[in-house]
Amino acid sequence: MTRYKAVIQYDGSDFLGYQIQATGRTVQEEIQKALTKMHKGQKTVVNASGRTDTGVHAKGQVIHWDSPFSIPVEGYYRGLETLTPDDIAIVSVEEVAADFHARYDVSGKEYRYFVKRSPQHDPFSRHYALRYPFDLDESLMNQAARILEGEHDFTSFCSARTDRESKVRNLYAIKIMPTEDGWIFSFSGSGFLYNMVRILVGALLYVGQKKLTPAEIKVALDKKDRTALVSRTAPPQALYLWEVFYEKDNKK
Amino acid sequence: MTRYKAVIQYDGSDFLGYQIQATGRTVQEEIQKALTKMHKGQKTVVNASGRTDTGVHAKGQVIHWDSPFSIPVEGYYRGLETLTPDDIAIVSVEEVAADFHARYDVSGKEYRYFVKRSPQHDPFSRHYALRYPFDLDESLMNQAARILEGEHDFTSFCSARTDRESKVRNLYAIKIMPTEDGWIFSFSGSGFLYNMVRILVGALLYVGQKKLTPAEIKVALDKKDRTALVSRTAPPQALYLWEVFYEKDNKK
Repeated sequence: MTRYKAVIQYDGSDFLGYQIQATGRTVQEEIQKALTKMHKGQKTVVNASGRTDTGVHAKGQVIHWDSPFSIPVEGYYRGLETLTPDDIAIVSVEEVAADFHARYDVSGKEYRYFVKRSPQHDPFSRHYALRYPFDLDESLMNQAARILEGEHDFTSFCSARTDRESKVRNLYAIKIMPTEDGWIFSFSGSGFLYNMVRILVGALLYVGQKKLTPAEIKVALDKKDRTALVSRTAPPQALYLWEVFYEKDNKK
Repeated sequence: MTRYKAVIQYDGSDFLGYQIQATGRTVQEEIQKALTKMHKGQKTVVNASGRTDTGVHAKGQVIHWDSPFSIPVEGYYRGLETLTPDDIAIVSVEEVAADFHARYDVSGKEYRYFVKRSPQHDPFSRHYALRYPFDLDESLMNQAARILEGEHDFTSFCSARTDRESKVRNLYAIKIMPTEDGWIFSFSGSGFLYNMVRILVGALLYVGQKKLTPAEIKVALDKKDRTALVSRTAPPQALYLWEVFYEKDNKK
């Protein structure tokens, strides 16, 4: 058995998220179907760094799988590019150590959220950015970002449906980058809870629009209670899993 | 009766083109449905500057319609924005003279074609640009562009299915604009024949890739025969109806 790691991209618009479902089109299913074809019908299971929700995109999702065949990485690259649909792209394929795990070995992730500042609706960015009609106070958003950075219990900033025991995560950095026509919000951290990035973006947008103060963000964070936050969860279509980091040396 | 003119945008990805069909989703039908609702069920027909094909986008399509109601332009703007789907946007609405016609009064049009230079396929631009893996010689393409500009019989550069009598059009300007990761081809002219822009782009790409010489473009143009050209018609998803020009003063 040889273990392979691949970096992939996908446009999440037409997927019911990454993870395979009983019904509906998913990224995992499309990749498994392609690998199963390449493996002469032998069912192949793919492991990813984590799931992404319906409509969420990936610029650098990481997956791994095991293969009983010795297919060169260039063969996997070409085969997967050919056999997966157009809304999935293969960035790279490499052989890795047999104990590498795309999920368990993650040391950090970066997500990005794209906001387009525009009074008019734009048909061309509707699947790729959040249109926001209001101006945002960057200085206030940065104050709130400084409060959220670091190791915290993020209970107030994750879906109440999350069942994981510990809600403590280390948010390494929040960067708010102005663009030609809006902002990109970047979140780097040790790991993210369910809906956490979208809830963080929603809260920061409220701060930027002066509907919440940075001090109120601090109060909500300290309360460790999802209902402590009045802001709205930002929609999924502007969210990108940007990069997944691994500290361990995975070389075979 | 009051005549209204509107500038609209649409993402052509999910439309079977602009013009209404017996079956299938079209831009014209969506706008007529919205206007019919605003006109209390009274069927309203919309006239456009021209049709666009399946997958082709518009940044500045122009339409007109007549209304028996005196609805302020702001009311039409809001109503159409609300009642049309997300892949259509209304840029502006104005009252115009009763003899203004979105198609007959056109004095010129600009189309743009987006080419992304990349060896790897990009899921995010697949509906909006042509990915081209080869480098292009801009100097040769510009030489060919100078040959194509001006008034010519474009029989060699339009679909053989076109049944219009005269194939003479005035191509005011072809601009080849380098971008960060490719090129934008802009075509301004008095009018365009069926598939003409996509055939022109296909020919210019062949010239840029040195599969055709500018001199061979001249030969093909002079032959006035669709089969004179060996290059391929460029695909529709990278084409945008960019702007429609009217010389006549349409003010009411």
